[in-house]
Amino acid sequence: MSLVVVGSMAFDAIETPFGKSDKIVGGAGTYIAWCASNFTPVKQISVVGGDFPQEELDALTNRNVSLEGVQIKKDEKTFFWSGRYHMDMNTRDTLDTQLNVLADFKPVVPESYQDCEFLMLGNLVPAVQSSVIKQLKKRPKLIVMDTMNFWMEIAMDDLKETISMVDVLMVNDSEARQLSGDYSLVRAAATIMNMGPKYVIIKKGEHGALLFHGNQVFFAPALPLEEVFDPTGAGDTFAGGFIGHLAKTEDISFENMKTAIIVGSAMASYCVERFGTERLRQITKPDIDARLAEFVQLVNFDIALV
Amino acid sequence: MSLVVVGSMAFDAIETPFGKSDKIVGGAGTYIAWCASNFTPVKQISVVGGDFPQEELDALTNRNVSLEGVQIKKDEKTFFWSGRYHMDMNTRDTLDTQLNVLADFKPVVPESYQDCEFLMLGNLVPAVQSSVIKQLKKRPKLIVMDTMNFWMEIAMDDLKETISMVDVLMVNDSEARQLSGDYSLVRAAATIMNMGPKYVIIKKGEHGALLFHGNQVFFAPALPLEEVFDPTGAGDTFAGGFIGHLAKTEDISFENMKTAIIVGSAMASYCVERFGTERLRQITKPDIDARLAEFVQLVNFDIALV
Repeated sequence: MSLVVVGSMAFDAIETPFGKSDKIVGGAGTYIAWCASNFTPVKQISVVGGDFPQEELDALTNRNVSLEGVQIKKDEKTFFWSGRYHMDMNTRDTLDTQLNVLADFKPVVPESYQDCEFLMLGNLVPAVQSSVIKQLKKRPKLIVMDTMNFWMEIAMDDLKETISMVDVLMVNDSEARQLSGDYSLVRAAATIMNMGPKYVIIKKGEHGALLFHGNQVFFAPALPLEEVFDPTGAGDTFAGGFIGHLAKTEDISFENMKTAIIVGSAMASYCVERFGTERLRQITKPDIDARLAEFVQLVNFDIALV
Repeated sequence: MSLVVVGSMAFDAIETPFGKSDKIVGGAGTYIAWCASNFTPVKQISVVGGDFPQEELDALTNRNVSLEGVQIKKDEKTFFWSGRYHMDMNTRDTLDTQLNVLADFKPVVPESYQDCEFLMLGNLVPAVQSSVIKQLKKRPKLIVMDTMNFWMEIAMDDLKETISMVDVLMVNDSEARQLSGDYSLVRAAATIMNMGPKYVIIKKGEHGALLFHGNQVFFAPALPLEEVFDPTGAGDTFAGGFIGHLAKTEDISFENMKTAIIVGSAMASYCVERFGTERLRQITKPDIDARLAEFVQLVNFDIALV
């Protein structure tokens, strides 16, 4: 059940209609690790600068997140992103991006990670993602990849190569359309499956997520929330819940992927309640179980009544 | 189980990115009747002009739709609407509206409709909707109301009065926000329930529908379709499936409303496959059952796997 996670560990500064954060800890890899470690130990691959707080690293170690694969470049600075969300929380403007240590990140897979059975490639330079796959001596049981429109614009060839190597691709709806050139999400998923992945997950934010596999499709709603406080990291948290559940149960059937998507959705619904990883750090097993029960209530109906 | 439906019967001319219809039969009442008559007999209240095709009236009569409450104004013209959908099919421009017989429509409830137990108020002038309620000597077991943003802009007082008289209000997401003044759909639903209805259904088009009742919430997805050919009437068809199922089963519990929403979603997924009511006229009981089975597959997951 060994789970390896690749992803950025970063600083974010976030503005939403509800407020403004300080410079806080963020990054896809950070969210995935905080989330997945609820379900299974994590072996993290990332890079940070000397300015990254030791307390954050210690907190992750205490969660059973191995940091052997996290490079610490003492004389450099951690990746920084700043953004502002619009009123609908579905769109945002990037205010600042400072690549810093990410600019020439060359991940090195430690020997102790070679037992990797589940590999989660958080959103990152596609060539960095594929370099991790190539360093693994034995192909993992399941490789899940997240990506974003940015790479479609500047590194499409690398992106397509990496996509061809994975089992599950996660993208949002507009990215699925961009990648496939098709407006229909059903056809977009079919096109993407022809690029390699046997499974495609299309994330629709507050409108839930779709899982496609062959001719099968499963839909998981997002929990209707009174307030989405900060959507940053929701997609990464979703990915962390998805892969965390699969790694914990060691079951990669379509049926279990359905459950994994519900777990991911439940975790994401917590993530957005506070700035950054704040809420993810607080939740416990009973919190997770309670929210999963809400999802059952949310979608469960008795077809026998028809 | 007597079901009375109030709604427009009209001519539409529709343009979508996929094509252009002739002047075809449409109207909220027409869609609701074609859909609900799959489940239970319908007593229709509407008005048409002398130009409305007799074959259409005969076809509805053959479906067990009583037309005793449909006024035929021989020397006037039927309501006409023309619109053009944008590429995303979620937004449309109205090209032409000719009220004609709808301009001074005064519905008269026939004596034979006084056994009404289920009343479906299709989208129409709010004062016309409430006039039907007021004409009923005995309050129906369940009154369901559909409306739209147009009435919020020109007849808000009448609209609020009618809303205060019904059990279930159906609106789309932007209308829920407009009516409540709240962006959050969860809070919007709570605000609307304070206006009278014990149940609120928020339709989100391709993103499904939410049912609110007290603190309970249920979500039904829309079926992911390769192609939405023409969304006209999808909301009305949804309403027809919802009320049709409730009237057929005579069960207005929250649990059965969940199933009714799935039935509505299944019927709407057929509606959008062709222009106008074309697809609704073709489908049979086995078609409906097959699509309901698809919905079970779409959302069913085994939480025991967590």
